[in-house]
Amino acid sequence: MMDCFRKYLVEFIGTFFLVFTVGATLLLGGSGVIPAIAIGLILMVMVYAGGHISGGHYNPAVSMAAAMRGALSWKHLAPYWLAQILGALAAAFLIRHVAVIPAAPDAVVFNLKSLIAAEFLFTFALCYVVLLTATSRYTEGNSYYGLAIGATVTAGIFAVGGTLCMAAFNPAVALSAMAMGMFGAKVVWITILTNLAAGIIAALVFKMVEYNE
Amino acid sequence: MMDCFRKYLVEFIGTFFLVFTVGATLLLGGSGVIPAIAIGLILMVMVYAGGHISGGHYNPAVSMAAAMRGALSWKHLAPYWLAQILGALAAAFLIRHVAVIPAAPDAVVFNLKSLIAAEFLFTFALCYVVLLTATSRYTEGNSYYGLAIGATVTAGIFAVGGTLCMAAFNPAVALSAMAMGMFGAKVVWITILTNLAAGIIAALVFKMVEYNE
Amino acid sequence: MMDCFRKYLVEFIGTFFLVFTVGATLLLGGSGVIPAIAIGLILMVMVYAGGHISGGHYNPAVSMAAAMRGALSWKHLAPYWLAQILGALAAAFLIRHVAVIPAAPDAVVFNLKSLIAAEFLFTFALCYVVLLTATSRYTEGNSYYGLAIGATVTAGIFAVGGTLCMAAFNPAVALSAMAMGMFGAKVVWITILTNLAAGIIAALVFKMVEYNE
Amino acid sequence: MMDCFRKYLVEFIGTFFLVFTVGATLLLGGSGVIPAIAIGLILMVMVYAGGHISGGHYNPAVSMAAAMRGALSWKHLAPYWLAQILGALAAAFLIRHVAVIPAAPDAVVFNLKSLIAAEFLFTFALCYVVLLTATSRYTEGNSYYGLAIGATVTAGIFAVGGTLCMAAFNPAVALSAMAMGMFGAKVVWITILTNLAAGIIAALVFKMVEYNE
Repeated sequence: MMDCFRKYLVEFIGTFFLVFTVGATLLLGGSGVIPAIAIGLILMVMVYAGGHISGGHYNPAVSMAAAMRGALSWKHLAPYWLAQILGALAAAFLIRHVAVIPAAPDAVVFNLKSLIAAEFLFTFALCYVVLLTATSRYTEGNSYYGLAIGATVTAGIFAVGGTLCMAAFNPAVALSAMAMGMFGAKVVWITILTNLAAGIIAALVFKMVEYNE
Repeated sequence: MMDCFRKYLVEFIGTFFLVFTVGATLLLGGSGVIPAIAIGLILMVMVYAGGHISGGHYNPAVSMAAAMRGALSWKHLAPYWLAQILGALAAAFLIRHVAVIPAAPDAVVFNLKSLIAAEFLFTFALCYVVLLTATSRYTEGNSYYGLAIGATVTAGIFAVGGTLCMAAFNPAVALSAMAMGMFGAKVVWITILTNLAAGIIAALVFKMVEYNE
Repeated sequence: MMDCFRKYLVEFIGTFFLVFTVGATLLLGGSGVIPAIAIGLILMVMVYAGGHISGGHYNPAVSMAAAMRGALSWKHLAPYWLAQILGALAAAFLIRHVAVIPAAPDAVVFNLKSLIAAEFLFTFALCYVVLLTATSRYTEGNSYYGLAIGATVTAGIFAVGGTLCMAAFNPAVALSAMAMGMFGAKVVWITILTNLAAGIIAALVFKMVEYNE
Repeated sequence: MMDCFRKYLVEFIGTFFLVFTVGATLLLGGSGVIPAIAIGLILMVMVYAGGHISGGHYNPAVSMAAAMRGALSWKHLAPYWLAQILGALAAAFLIRHVAVIPAAPDAVVFNLKSLIAAEFLFTFALCYVVLLTATSRYTEGNSYYGLAIGATVTAGIFAVGGTLCMAAFNPAVALSAMAMGMFGAKVVWITILTNLAAGIIAALVFKMVEYNE
């Protein structure tokens, strides 16, 4: 029981700081390279801090991939999602009290096909990297998994963020982006479904490429 | 005796370089992403260099959290604070001799609630990361603790620095920022108390999330 | 058979993401430091993810050097090259559908001697670093090989990219740069031959500097 | 004999790439954060590649500190310096053939006291970090030493480079900066002597802070 609670609390805290950093760097005036670097670093940091307790997902798509791969018990999936969403919404709520929210978020218009392709590709990359660096017994005990996971998000934001999609790569981040008034509901729901689909495909590809255990 | 002295000297040196880098990048013309990156890197470097000797705190709030967690003997707390403050003030003194100090530091006005929230959140994150990556026996022998600790400060400065607070996350840094004429006494004292409170809460949360040893 | 397939698939995926990031950051509006940082990070990430399966080359020149050094069986060389080229072209194809391709790529003119020198030097550095950090038994089990490999490319792009050469350091990247309309055929073929020559020389230098095993 | 030669060759190669990157990023149009980041990364990369062969110094002041600390045999010191200087000058020679050299390098005027203080501090930090992360038996087998060493140089360039001193932190780099026409003889010789003095002091401080072995 306590063992479950500590995992959920770690997921709450990590997702909170991830979304708080997303909101603060995008809405408080950070620009240029700052959001991509800060978001990748805070994810890395939280993965290193909480990885040995909860797995350090902070992302419903990653938790889905981890469950399919057998690295997360299925009974934990729903409470993980809940903890992640609560952490994300708590951060969004706090950001709304300190930041000026842009008036017309829906002004950001993405091409639908590009949005789906871009969110799919980097969420796939993220889950593929998580499974291969943080759950493979061939890379067990390595010190690079957090760096690899955070850097995937930074590279993804640099590659496609703002031009092709919102670059959430994470349903909890997408949901909180709506809560912070940065994107409209349609973009957000397509993003969330795409992220989850990418997590599922990543788990299947992981089973194809990883050596049998 | 010698064993104590070497720890205090390492804390002095590390805090000196941390504050010197803060002052040099902020007062000698560095701008944009430079201070946040340079400050995070020098902290990382000093943590890796001195971690096996003193723990590599360079921060009274971290030393407080480490003492509560049992990673620093309580009798060392006061001399650690003294070494950190002396290192910080020595760096501030040196910076005052090479840099032009801005005339009206108090011009920087923060919203009090935002200042407290922002300093609290990232000092909490910093101490939480230190305890989980550098003092947990489940992550012993890892090579990422310095990277995680430095990156927390970089992400924090990017997220809230300058807009919501001074982003010290460290009472010795806050004190030396006053000594370098960058902030007034009121902001500094509120920051210091907030930093220490965050260290205490981080140690309590660590005990909730970490597995029993 | 399955064992071969998984290696080729990993090489396909890694080269795909490398080239997709090259194309997206250069053609979708990223500028300044963004391409160099994003490209180095995605290479690092894919090396960490796939290194234990395929070696994580994603680069025909690296595969050539690895084969000469005995880290890749010669019979794998051709299929590795094929997988890398297919991954690169798939990414280029996708980029062509989402990005505006510049009209007159041949406008970029390099001095031929400088182009050869610059591509040679950093492809040599890249292969030298791969062999010494990822295939030496004296550094076995380290956690830094991906960081070192990705950072070589970032440093190389910063040092010579755009001014002296295209900074591919990788025949598959050079080929896809042509497919994406960024460079003309002459520059691309000289780059490819130079990259392969640098890989060969790096393998010879590796044998001179590494301790006998 | 062969064993010596391989060490010298590795020192030559590493210093060559370090100085080539210094020259290319400063003289070929890189600006803002690019030189500091690229120089720190290439140093990191070369330290990781050659560390297990030569120690990965690429810096006469580091070799001096390593000799005093007992990590480099004294008989190797002169040939190490020679290899480092030859590598640096080879890179400077190459850069002179591809880059436009500024006409009046002596236009850069530093305050003499500030120059000495700044070069001393960060060369001290560099050697202190090398000795504690790469030669201490308490941190043996770690994967962070290259990152820490490279990051010290990046942080140092950001903190004092251009404003207080040339930020060489390395006599071979200082010498080659003169050869590339970037600084005049007076600044260079003061820098070189300061760098060596800092290496000596760092070795003495190392003996004070490190546990007896």
